[in-house]
Formats: sequence, structure tokens, C-alpha cells
Amino acid sequence: MIAVLRQGVSQEQTSSLCDWFKTMGLQVHISEGEYQTIIGLIGDTSKIDIGLLEGLSIIESVKRISEPFKSANRKFHADDSVVDINGVKIGGGHFQMIAGPCSVESESQIITVAEAVKKSGASLLRGGAFKPRTSPYDFQGLQAEGLTLLLEARRRTGLPIVTELMNVNHLPLFEDVDVIQIGARNMQNFELLKEVGKTNKPVLLKRGLANTIKELLMSAEYIMASGNEQIIICERGIRTFETYTRNTLDLSAVPMLHRLTHLPVVVDPSHATGMSWLVEPMAMAAVAAGADGLMVEVHNDPEHALCDGAQSITPEQFDRLAERVRKIREVIHS
Amino acid sequence: MIAVLRQGVSQEQTSSLCDWFKTMGLQVHISEGEYQTIIGLIGDTSKIDIGLLEGLSIIESVKRISEPFKSANRKFHADDSVVDINGVKIGGGHFQMIAGPCSVESESQIITVAEAVKKSGASLLRGGAFKPRTSPYDFQGLQAEGLTLLLEARRRTGLPIVTELMNVNHLPLFEDVDVIQIGARNMQNFELLKEVGKTNKPVLLKRGLANTIKELLMSAEYIMASGNEQIIICERGIRTFETYTRNTLDLSAVPMLHRLTHLPVVVDPSHATGMSWLVEPMAMAAVAAGADGLMVEVHNDPEHALCDGAQSITPEQFDRLAERVRKIREVIHS
Amino acid sequence: MIAVLRQGVSQEQTSSLCDWFKTMGLQVHISEGEYQTIIGLIGDTSKIDIGLLEGLSIIESVKRISEPFKSANRKFHADDSVVDINGVKIGGGHFQMIAGPCSVESESQIITVAEAVKKSGASLLRGGAFKPRTSPYDFQGLQAEGLTLLLEARRRTGLPIVTELMNVNHLPLFEDVDVIQIGARNMQNFELLKEVGKTNKPVLLKRGLANTIKELLMSAEYIMASGNEQIIICERGIRTFETYTRNTLDLSAVPMLHRLTHLPVVVDPSHATGMSWLVEPMAMAAVAAGADGLMVEVHNDPEHALCDGAQSITPEQFDRLAERVRKIREVIHS
Amino acid sequence: MIAVLRQGVSQEQTSSLCDWFKTMGLQVHISEGEYQTIIGLIGDTSKIDIGLLEGLSIIESVKRISEPFKSANRKFHADDSVVDINGVKIGGGHFQMIAGPCSVESESQIITVAEAVKKSGASLLRGGAFKPRTSPYDFQGLQAEGLTLLLEARRRTGLPIVTELMNVNHLPLFEDVDVIQIGARNMQNFELLKEVGKTNKPVLLKRGLANTIKELLMSAEYIMASGNEQIIICERGIRTFETYTRNTLDLSAVPMLHRLTHLPVVVDPSHATGMSWLVEPMAMAAVAAGADGLMVEVHNDPEHALCDGAQSITPEQFDRLAERVRKIREVIHS
Repeated sequence: MIAVLRQGVSQEQTSSLCDWFKTMGLQVHISEGEYQTIIGLIGDTSKIDIGLLEGLSIIESVKRISEPFKSANRKFHADDSVVDINGVKIGGGHFQMIAGPCSVESESQIITVAEAVKKSGASLLRGGAFKPRTSPYDFQGLQAEGLTLLLEARRRTGLPIVTELMNVNHLPLFEDVDVIQIGARNMQNFELLKEVGKTNKPVLLKRGLANTIKELLMSAEYIMASGNEQIIICERGIRTFETYTRNTLDLSAVPMLHRLTHLPVVVDPSHATGMSWLVEPMAMAAVAAGADGLMVEVHNDPEHALCDGAQSITPEQFDRLAERVRKIREVIHS
Repeated sequence: MIAVLRQGVSQEQTSSLCDWFKTMGLQVHISEGEYQTIIGLIGDTSKIDIGLLEGLSIIESVKRISEPFKSANRKFHADDSVVDINGVKIGGGHFQMIAGPCSVESESQIITVAEAVKKSGASLLRGGAFKPRTSPYDFQGLQAEGLTLLLEARRRTGLPIVTELMNVNHLPLFEDVDVIQIGARNMQNFELLKEVGKTNKPVLLKRGLANTIKELLMSAEYIMASGNEQIIICERGIRTFETYTRNTLDLSAVPMLHRLTHLPVVVDPSHATGMSWLVEPMAMAAVAAGADGLMVEVHNDPEHALCDGAQSITPEQFDRLAERVRKIREVIHS
Repeated sequence: MIAVLRQGVSQEQTSSLCDWFKTMGLQVHISEGEYQTIIGLIGDTSKIDIGLLEGLSIIESVKRISEPFKSANRKFHADDSVVDINGVKIGGGHFQMIAGPCSVESESQIITVAEAVKKSGASLLRGGAFKPRTSPYDFQGLQAEGLTLLLEARRRTGLPIVTELMNVNHLPLFEDVDVIQIGARNMQNFELLKEVGKTNKPVLLKRGLANTIKELLMSAEYIMASGNEQIIICERGIRTFETYTRNTLDLSAVPMLHRLTHLPVVVDPSHATGMSWLVEPMAMAAVAAGADGLMVEVHNDPEHALCDGAQSITPEQFDRLAERVRKIREVIHS
Repeated sequence: MIAVLRQGVSQEQTSSLCDWFKTMGLQVHISEGEYQTIIGLIGDTSKIDIGLLEGLSIIESVKRISEPFKSANRKFHADDSVVDINGVKIGGGHFQMIAGPCSVESESQIITVAEAVKKSGASLLRGGAFKPRTSPYDFQGLQAEGLTLLLEARRRTGLPIVTELMNVNHLPLFEDVDVIQIGARNMQNFELLKEVGKTNKPVLLKRGLANTIKELLMSAEYIMASGNEQIIICERGIRTFETYTRNTLDLSAVPMLHRLTHLPVVVDPSHATGMSWLVEPMAMAAVAAGADGLMVEVHNDPEHALCDGAQSITPEQFDRLAERVRKIREVIHS
């Protein structure tokens, strides 16, 4: 960490600041120039509150050199983490496809889709029971009944289930869920992160629409700091000025996340683009960029989907996508 | 609402779609051209789920002409709403300053600040008890004890208090709070919005870092749809590519919100800029743009603030700001 | 095109507006509702100046339904355009790699790199002679001498050359250049676009840092409207809030551009990411997303490059990349 | 400037790098830690090409501590610069209003508007002769004839004129123009910047749609490095995700620019918002934020403007705006 002092700071003030840094166990290096003085701090700066430093009147600016996340940091954990979901492994060379409808709508719908995607090679079933919707007048999901239907689909197909948690008070309902999803809008719902951190369930953590890679990893750090290290990171598009696509899928985040963290990284091309015909090319690109998995919306009847029909692909389209993805995987690993 | 059909849609498909629209009580107007057919829908389209329409294979695109929010919409409520906080009125020509520290730190701190800002003309006291922090290692607020200290400051000064709610389970603790703040990171925490919608307390709803004005009003709509119409909207800066300031304060949102909604609009120049020396010029600009109030971080000792010291101003600086703001108000109303 | 009238517009004003639209050869359809009147315009609206309409006091808003570009529009030109550069074809199934250093620095440098990338399968040589630099104190390129060295490298290797034009007055110097590049910062330098539109040389048009896909195609339209239809579109990353990468590569632009235009689309992973280790994964992802070509910075000694060394890969890394890209191409075409 | 070395760099490599820095006249300070080594560089780093450093394999990252601009930097020029346009002074406490139509359309139009805005207190006349338009099919300005009409308006009213230059070859036509405007889309047209830097005319430099404050000042530095120090900086809105307004006016840029540079700063609320009813509130906010001037589009008949009618205000509206702005100025200076 680097602190730049304001012009005119006295020798005494500088010494007193440096002493304070030393009490925090940091090594302090001072570089004095004609126009400015820079203080370099070496050691574990992850627990320094940067806002506190910036508030000091003698400091002009503070820059972090090392990342503020620690448990999620590859520097301190060189090997890939592998998340194991009842035997389905993801990360460290294990690639998985998570597929299913945006919302669970009925027993026949979820089971039809689950059986179809399993046949095409998906190893995890996704489906929303509690749905975050921008408008209070839009369909909010089947809620508890949706969870029951997901569990029934798991019983029939053996596919572990991934579904979104929006409210800490729903946690008891999620006891039999295999992977808890934290949605983009809740990526910085720190109260929710702390609570899922206390469970022993794998968490799929989606990047917020306007959150940086660093903030995404700080949210993973929240969960890990509460004791749960089974985290799957999910890139799902960010908000930019471009309006042709719903969001802009940031695929360079995939290799960047792999460099910064040991946690597995999956990509959701459905929400990123908002259009079904863009799902296949973006899924292939994600795999070529090195993703450890895909999360794809599949619906047996997208035209009558109660939510996000425009971005859902059919089981037939998913089958083709899965086949092409497998071939890309072979090239990647050759 | 306008729906553009894909090329090659049959007469029959078009009729069947139009019939469906009519069952929803909408008037339907068809415009057929050489290259495209456009369907115009007139009536209350606020409850149509646009995602559903976009999912239909015969539809190329859908555009809303009227806004999807209704209770918050000025079109259906021409007069300014006035929110009354135990006699302190905001909106409809009533202007108020909300001031106080980022975090409540101690009894002497909160009372010192409360007395000072009251003397300078603030009519509401802000102070964080539960703090949303990007890092799990940063100070998280005094929590329940912070609320107690805020109530003590109210008892001493008479200033109603505004403080942030992050977790629905904390609601019982907020029973005596005057205004519940929903922070930027929770603007789309729909579960939280529904719950504060069931209370009878005024809500100060902050715009999310990357949320559009439309989404901000849809979040207000969530609260109103649950029965609570006492909402104060707060602009506090959005995330852009510019890095010199923490966020980019979007002041054109102030007159735009006044046109779109009848709810009062306040501005928080402290979080928007992240630097104390920018607070005064941006506060003045906000008032010149027509804001109904300001929310300003004031700390008696910013250098030792446990949170956001860099953006806090001193009581002396607030006193000067308040004086200058009053003069701008006179110009605005002349 | 849809025009929404303001409330309270008289029958007479509406008729007069509609008559005016009809004189422009448009079909006019009026939909009247309780709260608003919508006018649908069918026909060739690409030449309507939307700003003019928005300026009318009786109009609330105007929305385009069809794209404002015509020559570049796939709707009016269903087949892929193939750009032929002295026998090197790009588009319509023809894939090409453009490689070379950011800046031409010396004869030995450019020839060494040209021979290496040719051997690895590149079919076009890139190299900057005139360099747009953010700082006036940074290296501005070898200028005319750089062009001479590029031509020498072409003479030795047979690779056609691609280089950037920044000033219409340099056009005479570009007489022997094979492909004129318009850089991101000049994408909306309309004077430059008009002039290259009058030449008969293929143009590689890069997307501006903050330009939408629509604006990119409008810039292609400028060149086409001046008579030159040999355009290669290049996605090279857009500016977002994320700071870990220099820009955010927008790969969904690749299939989106293929749907909107018949022009070939290439991707520049070097400028998009700014880091050499990200070039290979992003190149592979671009090809998986369907790009018609890649533009890659290769330098024989990146550590001593006078420009953009951080994002240049070595000839050995390019050789590996080219091999892997070929395998992805096979999957794409299977 | 701070350079962070990669892990595993040898003592010898470090020494050799430091020696190189010293030959550039920099003081070098090394801070070695367990996980990383940081090199602090003190001295004039404005001429170091940061891209070159980032390209070195032994360097992990480089961060600038001091700004890369020098002539424009307030650190080296503490007093406000005052730009004098034939006696009309701007900056250093001098406030001016620049007003006029988007495009010059006819003699009667430009003279009517010029006389009206002069009467209301404007001291400079703006008007476009060469117009940068996104579509090649939109009105491109009266060009040379427009300049003649502007000069006629100056002869009649005495108001110096401000008009946009898009092409270095048009410079001879601009011989009698008082202030050359560089538009947002040409802010990084470095060839144009160099040429206007060689003239002795004041330059009004507009911020690009997606350019940072630092890049804006680097473009000013280009002009200054060529010898012309009479520059007026203009904030005119940046591109963000918000779509309700055309751009997002970044008013915090006003005090920030005042801190970073000694050059005068004006604000263009017309282009920033794109809507005439937003011009007055945003003009007032700009002045409250400390702008040294305003640039406002005024048209005698906005409904029939050939360009940007939606954002033009009438002379009557300008008169009211000017009156209110004067009152805000009084508060600012009290």
C-alpha cells in the first residue's frame, strides 16, 4: 500500500503516522521528493480500512498495491479449488453445465426440462423459485412450491439443484437445496452473504451488474470469512452504455479471475445477452476463454415461459450447444 | 407499448396475438408496412410483463411508450407529495437538510454533531448503526448500540433520525426510528422493499450505483405497492468510467425525477464525491438544480472517523454550507 | 419510426404533422388513446433526422424501429460481403489473421516480425507508422519512414499491410498501403471517414472506446455513402467501470454485428485487454464467437517495444495461438 | 511513480532497472517486502511512457502518483489563467455566457439570435458552420457560407464568435474566427490538436463523451505543447448507462478541474441533457458549482431548427436563464 502525503506535512506528523503503521505490523519505507513524499507499506494490508487513511488531512491519496482479499486470493492458495456438489466436481479441470428454466412453473415443466438437459450432458439443474423482478407487478416465482418441485425433479433425475436465495429468512426452506445461488442484485447484500457463509452448502455467487472484479472477490471473501469456502464465481454480464444486448458479457473476467483467485468460475450467457440466439456463440466463447462451467436457461416452451422467455433456448438447442461445447473443451485441453 | 412483429408472421398469428391483447383490456392498433408490422397498445400497460412478450417467436422487439410505474408516476398524481416526519415536512416547496456522521461512534460524538448541525439549520439527524462495507474486515457499525445512541441524540436535540436498514430481521429494532434508509446496495433488495412497504414509516430510498432512474422509480413502486407511500428519493452518484471522483453525481436526475414522479428528491453530495472539499460546491449545485433537500456527512473529528472520514465535513464547514445553501434557495424561489 | 404526441395536441396539429410525413413518402398510422396518441411511420425512415422531430413542441418522444443505416444493413444485403485484399479474402467464411508490432521501429524489427508471423499463418501485416498517443510526450511513431519500412516488409514477405491513417493530408503517403485502418479515437472523425470513402482501398474500421454498435455501423455508412464498400469492422474493447483490464472486450458484438450487417468482423484482443497473457484466451474466445479474423500485436522483443509492450506477444506465443485458433475454427465449422 | 516488481526478480535485474531510472534524472527508492518489491520514483515523471514500463517482464504494475500533464497543471501554475478574446475575459473571476444556435441556418436567423442573446447578457456568439453528425444523411451545416454569416453577425453585434473546426484543411477559412471549438468527438484527434496548438487563437476544448478528466487535460497539454496556452475547457456530459438524458452532465468535474488546472472551465448544459426544459436547472447548477461560463444553444424558432431543436431554448427563455444565473453568481461570490 502506498500513501502519498500532502505538501507541507511536518517531519513530526510524518513520524507519528509511520509509528502508527508500525504498530499495525507493517514495514514502512519513506521516499521524499521535492514535490511529494510517498510512504510505502509492506506486509498484510488487507485489514487496513482505506477510507480511514484517506480521511487523514495529511494524506493526499492512498493506493493499494496488493489486493484487499485474502482467503479468495490465489497468491496464498496456488492450487485451484474444487467444489464438490454431492460428487459433481467443478474447478481444477472439472467442467460442468448447469441448465434449466429461469423459473420453475409446474411439475411437468421442470421434470421435462431436467430430463432433457441431463440427457444432453448437464450435471446440475437450475430453476428459480424465488424471483427478483424489477417490477412488483411481474411474476415473482412459485416460491416454496417451486422448491418442492425442484426437489422432485432431483429425485427423478439425480441432478443436484441450484436455486436463488433472496431472504435470510428463507434459509430453512433451502435445507435440501444443493447449491445456493446469490443473484447479481444481492451480490452486495452483505447480511445475506454472512448468513450463507455460516451454512455448509456450496454457493454460486453472481457478479453484480455494475460490480468490479475486485468487489466480486470481496463478496466471496465475506462468505469465506464466515467459514464457507465452497464458492463458485459466476460472470453474467455487466452494465455498459451499449443497448443492443441486455448486458455486456465480460469474458476477459474469466482468465482474470483465474489469475486472481483459486475459486472456480462459470459463465451465464443467457442473462448476459438476453437473447436466445446469442446464447450458443457466447457459451462457446466462454468455454474457449477457459470457463469451468456454464449456466444456461433452457425451457421446453420458451414462448410461454413466465419469465425471460426471450433468452431461453429449447432442449434441442441445448443439445447442440452441449455437443459443440464439448469439442471446444477438447481444443482447450489439447 | 409498441410491439414490432418479425417478417413473415401470418395474418392468423397476428390476429390471435391482438385478441390476447384485447383480453387484457388494451386497445390495439396495427400498422402494416412493406418490411414490418407494428402493433400499438393503448391503455394500462404497466402490468404487462415485457419479458413475456419478448419471448414470443413472432415478436422482434417491444418498446414501452409509457412508464411501467404507476403509484409513483406524476401523470396520475400531478401535485407534489409532501412527506411529513413528525412535523418536519419535505417536498412540495419544503426543503430540509439531513446531516450527521457516516457512523455513530459514541454518545459524545453523535450528540456533539447533532447539536452542531441543528444549530446550523439541519432538521433531521443521520447516522449509521448498521454499515454496509465492501470488506468483511472493515468496521461494520455499532449496530443495536448505535440505534440507542441515535435515539438519545434525538431526545436531546429533538431532531428526528434517519438510519439505514440492511436486514428485515432488524425491523423490530427500528421501531422508534423516524425514517428508514434503504442504501444504494439494497435498492433492488426486493424482499427488503416489500417489508418496509408494510411499515408506516417514511423511507429514504437511495439510488443504486448502477441503477437507472426508471429502476429507481420501480423500487419506489415496490414500496408503494405494499402500502407505504411516504418515500423520499435520494440521488447519490452513479458508477461511470471516471475515476477522479468516487462516483459521478447525476444532477440532471433531480429535475428529471421531479418531472416523472411526485415524490420529494434529495441529494447526497458526500457519498457522490467521496471528498470533503467537493461537498460544498456539489451541495450548492444540487440546490440550484431544484433538490428538495440535502443529506450531508458531518463529523466533529473527520480525521478520526471510523468510516468515510475523507468525505465528511466539520460542523464549521457545514455551518458555512448551510448559510450558502439558504441563499441559493432564495434565488431559486425568486 | 414511432412518434408519441404530447397530451393536448389539437386535431389540426396532428393532421398537419401527418401530411408532412406523407410528403416524405411515408405511410402514417395513428393510434389514439385516452392518455396519448402514437403515430407509426412506415417506409424508408433512414434519412429522417430524428433530432428535427424531437424538436417539435407537439412531440413527446420519437423511437426508431428500423436501423438508421442502409448500405451496411444486412436486411438489404443478405449475403456476407467478402473483402478482397490483393487476393487475401476476409468474410463469408474466409478467416484471416492480421499480426505485427504496435509500432514500426526499425527495418530489422518489422522484417523479423513479418517473417515470423507469416510462418505461423498470418496473412496480413499490421504496424503503426503514425501513432495516436494520449500524451504529447510519448513516442508518436516513425511516420513516413515507418510506411517505407512496412512496404519493404511487404516486398520481402508478400504480406499485404494494414496501417493507421490519422490525417487526411497523409493520404498521398498511403497510396501503396493495402488496408487503411481508422483507429478507435477517429471512429467519429467524419471528415476522415468521408475521405477514405473516396478511395478504393479496403478500410479496417475500429469501434470507438465508447461507441455503440449502432454508431459503429453509422460510421461504416459514412464510408459507404462516399462510395467505398470494402469495410472490415473491428471490435477492440469498450470503456466500462471495470479497471482490471484496459478495456472490456465486447464479444457479443461479434454475433450481433453479423446479424445487423453483411460486413466482415474481426477482433483485436491486444488493445482490448492491454495484457499479453490475456491475448490468447481472448483470441480463442473471439474465434469461438464467430469472428472473421483476428488482429494481434506481435513483437520480437516486447520488453523493448517503444509502444504497448505490455500487450504484445512474442512470435513463439503467436505461433501457439495460431495453432490453437485453427483448431477452434474447425469446431466452429463442423 | 510507483513500479511494483514481479515475485522472483533478481537483485541484478532490480539494480539494472534502477540505474536506468537514474539516467532519466529520477530519484529511486526501493521498498522490499516478503511478497513484493516496490520502486518509488521521484522527480519529473511526466515524460515517462508508462506503456514502456508495463511492457517489462520484471514489472507487475505501474501507478502514477503525479499527473502526466505539466503545462496545464495547477501545481506548476497556481494562479487562474485568464483567456482574453478581444477584450472579453474568461477565467480568474471573469464569467461569460456563450450563446447561439446549434447551426447557422440563414443571415436573418443568426442575426436575430445574436442580437437577442447580446441583449440578455451573452458576450460571445456560438454557431456551427461545419457540423459533426452521426448519420451521413443528416444536415452537415452551411460550411464556408456559415462562417461568412457568423462574421456578419459579429460585425452587426460586436460579439466575438466561437465555432467548431473539424478538419485541419479548413483552418484558412477560420482566420477571422475568434475562438476555435474542438468538439467532443475530436477531443482525441491529436493531429487537429497539434495544428490548433500552432495558431494564436483561443481554443474551446470540449470533453469527449467517454473521456476522463485526465485525458481531457492531456488533450489540453497537446495544444499547449504546440505553443498555444489560451484554452477554455468545456464539460458537456459523459456517456453512462442512464438513458433518460442524452448524456450525464458531470458537474463534479467543474471543481475537480479547478483544482487540477489553472485553465478556465465552462459548461454546456444543452448538449449534456438534450432537452430544452433541462437547460435552465442544469445551467444554474453549473454556475453554483463554480463554472467560469456557460455555453447555451438558443434558437429563435426551435421547432424549425435544422439541428438539435429539442435542446435549444428560445431567446425569451435565455433571457430568464441569464437573469437567474446572475443571481446565483452573486451568491457564489458573496
